[in-house]
Amino acid sequence: MRFLHTADWHIGRRLYGYDLTEAQKTAFAQIEQIALDQHVDGILLAGDLYDRSLPAETAVTTLNEMIQKLNLTDHLPIYAISGNHDSATRLATGAPWYPATQFYMVTQLEAAFKPIELADTQIFSLPYFEPFAAQQYFDDAGLVQLDQCVAAVVAKMKTKFDPTKKHILIAHFFVSGSATTDSETQLTVGGLAAVPAATLRDFDYVALGHLHGKDALHEPKMRYSGSPVKFSLSEAQQQKGVFIVDTEPFQLTFIPLKPLHDVHKLTASFDELMTPAFYEALPLTDYFGLTLTDVKPIPDVMARLKTVYKNILSLDRANGYTLPETLQQKTLEHKAPLTLLSDFYEEIAKEDLTEKQLQWAKKALAEANKAVE
Amino acid sequence: MRFLHTADWHIGRRLYGYDLTEAQKTAFAQIEQIALDQHVDGILLAGDLYDRSLPAETAVTTLNEMIQKLNLTDHLPIYAISGNHDSATRLATGAPWYPATQFYMVTQLEAAFKPIELADTQIFSLPYFEPFAAQQYFDDAGLVQLDQCVAAVVAKMKTKFDPTKKHILIAHFFVSGSATTDSETQLTVGGLAAVPAATLRDFDYVALGHLHGKDALHEPKMRYSGSPVKFSLSEAQQQKGVFIVDTEPFQLTFIPLKPLHDVHKLTASFDELMTPAFYEALPLTDYFGLTLTDVKPIPDVMARLKTVYKNILSLDRANGYTLPETLQQKTLEHKAPLTLLSDFYEEIAKEDLTEKQLQWAKKALAEANKAVE
Repeated sequence: MRFLHTADWHIGRRLYGYDLTEAQKTAFAQIEQIALDQHVDGILLAGDLYDRSLPAETAVTTLNEMIQKLNLTDHLPIYAISGNHDSATRLATGAPWYPATQFYMVTQLEAAFKPIELADTQIFSLPYFEPFAAQQYFDDAGLVQLDQCVAAVVAKMKTKFDPTKKHILIAHFFVSGSATTDSETQLTVGGLAAVPAATLRDFDYVALGHLHGKDALHEPKMRYSGSPVKFSLSEAQQQKGVFIVDTEPFQLTFIPLKPLHDVHKLTASFDELMTPAFYEALPLTDYFGLTLTDVKPIPDVMARLKTVYKNILSLDRANGYTLPETLQQKTLEHKAPLTLLSDFYEEIAKEDLTEKQLQWAKKALAEANKAVE
Repeated sequence: MRFLHTADWHIGRRLYGYDLTEAQKTAFAQIEQIALDQHVDGILLAGDLYDRSLPAETAVTTLNEMIQKLNLTDHLPIYAISGNHDSATRLATGAPWYPATQFYMVTQLEAAFKPIELADTQIFSLPYFEPFAAQQYFDDAGLVQLDQCVAAVVAKMKTKFDPTKKHILIAHFFVSGSATTDSETQLTVGGLAAVPAATLRDFDYVALGHLHGKDALHEPKMRYSGSPVKFSLSEAQQQKGVFIVDTEPFQLTFIPLKPLHDVHKLTASFDELMTPAFYEALPLTDYFGLTLTDVKPIPDVMARLKTVYKNILSLDRANGYTLPETLQQKTLEHKAPLTLLSDFYEEIAKEDLTEKQLQWAKKALAEANKAVE
């Protein structure tokens, strides 16, 4: 059979304050087209459908429309689980009605042990869960760490294995050895909440969600699809897309998605960044994280950069920020009061003190010194 | 055909801070049993399923379980609309899948013109809507008041009337002439947002939601079912229940629900309320709104009343609140300063000033008077 593996849609998410709805709709349209072109037998959707447990109404409408398009218009089966960003309770609304059209929305641990039976494949859906849920389900207070819980879950799943079929697992957690970025919520404390890949190797494919990069894990039959859209500057270098999974013979193909607006990191001096020969070659409607190599203050720097780069996600300095020689502490300490005053005036007013102003200053200084004596 | 008409479940609502979940589940169980006993052909559910547009997860679970019970377990058709307390967007999640099991959740104005076609009955579902939605739908900026909008909606519905069938309308608004309580959100500004009953008289039955009392409107073929549970002291006198509607021949039967804990208003003196002969006849686990006929202060009054009445919703005075003679303004004005002080000390410390304290006070008063001179 052939499946499309995607995850971490995070509908409702913003990118440093920028609305991503259109970017997410653009990515979705490509995912839909890939699914149709590739004649897949279903979509594996590995959690974090929403960005928040309490999604805004616009996010609800957006996700509802996407799911309805895939399942009711395109008649594509969907095998979905809830992730750590989703409210399992809210996602479960309507779930008992969905299987009539081969849409499976699994949000509860106990449902993980009832595989969805296809002609030659069993799909096991393991939604995101806390160890407490496993303790309750197995009535075992010893299940404290996630790896222990997943080991128990997988052991029980194996008792349901039909040896004549392939076995696919959909899951949402951190598999040890994976590379993270800063845009996933850290579920680990001291690395204890990671699941060893070995626990999962008896499946013919493990469709993972949680990490946003497709290269986070390189196991032969175990992948994160990654998110369809870049959610952070730390994802700037990632190529977004979906996996097409063939089960017989096993084959994994990554198909990239074209972003509506890409995310770039640039490191250069202010003058370079503002040089037409430099920026005219760039896709200026994209998102930019800018790092200046300058160390001096640049007045109105953000406003001036925005005349060229409309969507700036962040602005940093590569080499720190240095005050001009005249304003540095070590210089200031050795200056006479009147020199300090005239330097300061010049810095602010961009002109020298007049002779009259200098006389006033001298007089005021003399009086101040007298008062101290 | 035979229908059960209910509305205004307001799942998630609290009664003066008290959790009503169990009360609502108890009422629901009775509604379910009535529907089964009466062999109804469906449930008309006229809006305000939730109390808030953003219901808590516990409310989501509660409503989901109720709907699943009726529709998936009991195989009862449900004809539901969203009310002004519901988020039409959130309630719409899953809606395209529901009709497969004869559960119709209508949340958008445009769906009101596609009646649900039963063997001998057309059901028109008109969710709560703002005049702006009607302006957009009819492309008519002149539709400013709700009565104009509903007149336009009903006129269009009539073009869909199958003359061989009965016509039922499910709607959620204020029909003029209805009696309100203080527990419904007022949708009217100066009474303009009321719909005249005459606008709706071409239907064979109008199943209304919004007002919480079954007696709010007395039209032969038009009723508010009222809420299944009392949501306010102003509903203390109402009898809660559901209507059974027979369409051929037309017949309307009210079936009351037994509350888990009823709501009572009591007006009596504190001493009466605390007399066993008085309270032992009362269902003391119920909710009480208490009005005291006393006018004097009663120390620790709430704590003492709660030793008998566990669930007090409010505590008022029927005849106002009078200070004891010694502390009234007109008495105080005629007292000498030292008398005032000793009275005050006695009131607070519950003992007289000592001779030594009195000497100190006299001395302090003399000095204060001297300072004024």
